[in-house]
Amino acid sequence: MCELRLQSLEKKILFEAGETPAVVYEMKKQVDSFREKLESVEHLSWLGLFKDLSEGTHKPSPFYHKRALRKTREECEHVREKFLQMSSLEVSEGVRQYLKTPTFDNWQWEDAEIMVLLQVMYTDLDFIATFNIEPEVLQQFLFEVYRRYNNIPFHNFKHCFCVTQMMYGLIWLTDLKSKMDSVDLLIMLTSAVCHDLDHTGYNNVYQINAQTELALRYNDISPLENHHCAVAFEILERTESNIFRNLSMDQYKRIREGIIKCILATDMTRHNEILNKFKLILPAFDFTNKDHRDVLMMILIKVSDISNEARPMEVAEPWLDCLLQEFYNQSDVEKLEGLPVTPFMDRDKVTKPSSQTGFIRFVLLPLFIELANLFPCLEHHIIDPVRKALDYYTEMEKALEREKKNWAQSENAAKSKEAAVGRQDSQTEAGPEASKPDIQ
Amino acid sequence: MCELRLQSLEKKILFEAGETPAVVYEMKKQVDSFREKLESVEHLSWLGLFKDLSEGTHKPSPFYHKRALRKTREECEHVREKFLQMSSLEVSEGVRQYLKTPTFDNWQWEDAEIMVLLQVMYTDLDFIATFNIEPEVLQQFLFEVYRRYNNIPFHNFKHCFCVTQMMYGLIWLTDLKSKMDSVDLLIMLTSAVCHDLDHTGYNNVYQINAQTELALRYNDISPLENHHCAVAFEILERTESNIFRNLSMDQYKRIREGIIKCILATDMTRHNEILNKFKLILPAFDFTNKDHRDVLMMILIKVSDISNEARPMEVAEPWLDCLLQEFYNQSDVEKLEGLPVTPFMDRDKVTKPSSQTGFIRFVLLPLFIELANLFPCLEHHIIDPVRKALDYYTEMEKALEREKKNWAQSENAAKSKEAAVGRQDSQTEAGPEASKPDIQ
Repeated sequence: MCELRLQSLEKKILFEAGETPAVVYEMKKQVDSFREKLESVEHLSWLGLFKDLSEGTHKPSPFYHKRALRKTREECEHVREKFLQMSSLEVSEGVRQYLKTPTFDNWQWEDAEIMVLLQVMYTDLDFIATFNIEPEVLQQFLFEVYRRYNNIPFHNFKHCFCVTQMMYGLIWLTDLKSKMDSVDLLIMLTSAVCHDLDHTGYNNVYQINAQTELALRYNDISPLENHHCAVAFEILERTESNIFRNLSMDQYKRIREGIIKCILATDMTRHNEILNKFKLILPAFDFTNKDHRDVLMMILIKVSDISNEARPMEVAEPWLDCLLQEFYNQSDVEKLEGLPVTPFMDRDKVTKPSSQTGFIRFVLLPLFIELANLFPCLEHHIIDPVRKALDYYTEMEKALEREKKNWAQSENAAKSKEAAVGRQDSQTEAGPEASKPDIQ
Repeated sequence: MCELRLQSLEKKILFEAGETPAVVYEMKKQVDSFREKLESVEHLSWLGLFKDLSEGTHKPSPFYHKRALRKTREECEHVREKFLQMSSLEVSEGVRQYLKTPTFDNWQWEDAEIMVLLQVMYTDLDFIATFNIEPEVLQQFLFEVYRRYNNIPFHNFKHCFCVTQMMYGLIWLTDLKSKMDSVDLLIMLTSAVCHDLDHTGYNNVYQINAQTELALRYNDISPLENHHCAVAFEILERTESNIFRNLSMDQYKRIREGIIKCILATDMTRHNEILNKFKLILPAFDFTNKDHRDVLMMILIKVSDISNEARPMEVAEPWLDCLLQEFYNQSDVEKLEGLPVTPFMDRDKVTKPSSQTGFIRFVLLPLFIELANLFPCLEHHIIDPVRKALDYYTEMEKALEREKKNWAQSENAAKSKEAAVGRQDSQTEAGPEASKPDIQ
């Protein structure tokens, strides 16, 4: 009996227990194949496993913050569910009308609601019907867009919404539906939706100076705008989120060309170039001329992109705080990394009012005024509030100046007093050195 | 005693040996997490493991041929070893002088030797000394360049060499060293070296129509040239292959800007734009004017890029065969994929002479003539051989025409004869149908 049990045990040990389970071999194969891939595919070199990279330099890159920057899966799923639940509800006529005005207050709406509002825009401009867009595809598109805007102070999903909502407002205010065809309108609205996708909170100057992945990829040519646009079409090329999937190849081509043109036009280094083009054609503007329409579309997205100051003060001012937060963060990082510090982002040099007065005076107003030359009705809707904002910040700037002067005076007075006290003291306690006035 | 030993063994085997070690489970968890990542992170979708891709469309892309296209590691290592062995040998004065002439025959040299010749160019233009380039860094740079040119018929490492060698020849022939500073010369030579890196054998029109990864990334804007340039700086940003690593930041910036400008200028859709700019400044060309120099540098790389026909016939003609092979392959793929077929690549429409006569007459000569207006000595060196080539291909075209005519005539004669025979036959064997003439 013992002998039998022994034999059975021996058999088990010698022939079975010694064997490595098949699952381990399978796993080993998987791991080897992964390793091989990770070590030899140079596109994955940034993982740090690529054999050749061991000696390479480590570039500072905004992508280092990747994990915090990107939205988490849970965050996205939560918002998606909410959005889908709400999207079947009817949006009231009051909200639909309000949505067409530049006074719309984005701060009242959370992200899932914003997605519903974007859906309303596509519906009320008749895009759903005209371009045969399936509701689920539009929802998937909007969700992907939401997902690919990052958690940063300014260039986030809410900024995307504001720019799109201003574009939407401009389309209605100027009655553009009667002047341009619906493909152009679709291009404009979708460009606005996509125009800052995957922005990382650092502008082109930083990208170029820090020699980031994006600057390298795009040869320092509008790295951000090129990337926003490429991400847009990454989303649009997936069938399930391609709102253009029922269009003809020719229509798709035209739309792709248009969106690329619009998004690339948001690079502010091209501001004068585009504005000058517009000024040139303005005296004989012709809506039947494609070149004219193209320039107008670029102007419209540019106006929308920097239109915060055309909104009511209580909407606009928080946006300025967000912008400065993003700017200050960039200049802080630039200082840390020993890069040239972008002057208008430097917290030691810029204040809230000083950042706005120059911008409104020299960039915003000249642009808005030209657009209002084509559409006089805009004077009241977007130029008046901008002038009001300019007055407000000019006043604030003056007040700050006065405060600074007062502060300096009282500081000086205090110092004179101290110095006088010092002189008295020096005669009793200290040597002649103590009588030197402070140099600050 | 036996019983005790047995029990202990049984315990060990039944309760412990059967258990998979904890470390395996841990490993399994890791593997699962990898798999999960690779299947769900869309940035890695091109690995082919991404789950969503199964439903997506399969885009035709030149990257599908990736494995065959790219050089293998063994191939590269073999050539690198040869190169390093040879690079310590002295290149004779005769070869060094020959290398400065447009009559140089690339077909005599294998890839490792070509790398040595490129090294000679950097040496003889004094770049090594002027820019403090370490020999090992230059070698690593040249090796990486070699590695990133693909196994395709035309836009391969030998083409890179020919363009660079023509640029080198032009620099010497025009005595450019006395007219421009060495940074500009370094920009020009390095741009030529890098100008077609990682070309996949399909031109921009294909990239855009097939909606390839590159077209998507670059928003249809010079996708290839942007990519060549990005790959160039991918190589140059690695310390071990950065031939500019001992330069100041300002010099590096200037060189980067220059190389980008030069490589992007090789997009032939910009041909007229650049040529017109050059014509405009030519009457008052000023070597001290940076804008003028920039345009000249673009013209020089353009001339070098399409300079095959300026070479001796026995060098140039094999290149044309290579080019047509690459063209025909593209048009074949276009037909297969149902894309618009690029007419000048269609093997049903293009012959060797017909492809060249138009190109030389309308593109090549007008460009070369303008350059020779600035440097009259080039007339003899590069324009005369081009005119000879034009005569040669014009003759060949005529001969082909004659042959075609003769063939058509004899074909017709044969058909008439057949028809006559057919008519006779029809009276005996066939019905009235047989007497219909063939329609071709």
